[in-house]
Amino acid sequence: MKKVDHIGIAVASLEESMALYTEQLGMTHMKTETVESQGVNVAFIDAGNMKIELLEPTSPDSPIAKFLEKRGQGIHHIAYSVQNIESRIAEMKERGIQMINESPKLGAGGAHVAFMHPKSTGGVLMELCEKKEEI
Amino acid sequence: MKKVDHIGIAVASLEESMALYTEQLGMTHMKTETVESQGVNVAFIDAGNMKIELLEPTSPDSPIAKFLEKRGQGIHHIAYSVQNIESRIAEMKERGIQMINESPKLGAGGAHVAFMHPKSTGGVLMELCEKKEEI
Repeated sequence: MKKVDHIGIAVASLEESMALYTEQLGMTHMKTETVESQGVNVAFIDAGNMKIELLEPTSPDSPIAKFLEKRGQGIHHIAYSVQNIESRIAEMKERGIQMINESPKLGAGGAHVAFMHPKSTGGVLMELCEKKEEI
Repeated sequence: MKKVDHIGIAVASLEESMALYTEQLGMTHMKTETVESQGVNVAFIDAGNMKIELLEPTSPDSPIAKFLEKRGQGIHHIAYSVQNIESRIAEMKERGIQMINESPKLGAGGAHVAFMHPKSTGGVLMELCEKKEEI
C-alpha cells in the first residue's frame, strides 16, 4: 500500500455534487461511468495527487443507497493503490485483517478491487485497488 | 485546492491505531505531536502521495471525543493543501461555501487551517491547510 488511489464519497445526486466540486471548489471532472456490479454511477474528480470518486446509487438496494439511508452523504471509503492484489489480500489475512472480498471484484475503471472490513481497520472502510488502466 | 494534504481519522487510542497502520498495514509512522488548541494527539502516517492524520482526543470535550461518541472511530475530514489561505477562505465564501473558521487557526505541524461546514460540502468535513513547514 504505497499510495492512496482515491477517496470514495457517497452522494445523493451526481449532478448536484458535480456542481459543488467543479463550480464551487474549482476541481476538474475526469469522467463518469456506471459500475453495474456495485449499483453505482461514479464520477471521477481530479484532486491533483489522487482522485475523488463520487458514488451515486443506481437502485435502492445498492450498498451506497443503504449507506446514504443510514449515515447520509459523506466519505465512504479510502482506496489504496496496490500491485498483485491476490498476494496483498493473502498478506492482509495473514496479518489479521478481515477481508469483505477474499477475491478481487471488478470496480470502476476496470480496476480489480477488494474491501477490508471496517471492524478490523479502525472503523474505516478500506479498499485495495489494482488498476488495469490509467484514467 | 490542487492536492490532498491529508485524511484525518478519529481514533480511540493512538497506540492501538499505530499497531494497525504500521504492523498490519505496513505503513510508516512519521511523527506524533499534541495540538492543544484542538484537544488532540496527532500521529502522522506516510501514505506515499499524502499523509494520514490519526486523531486521538486529549479530553472529553475535544471535538474528536464528541465525534467518537456520536459516530465511533472512522474518517473525520479531508484536508486540501492551499496557498494564501485567507484568499481561499474569501473565495470559498463568495462561492457560497459556509466556513466553520472564517479566519485561519493553528493546526498540527504549525499549519494554518480552516474548516468548511459539511452542510455546504455534501456531508464531508473539508479543511483548507496552508503548511508552514514540511513534516
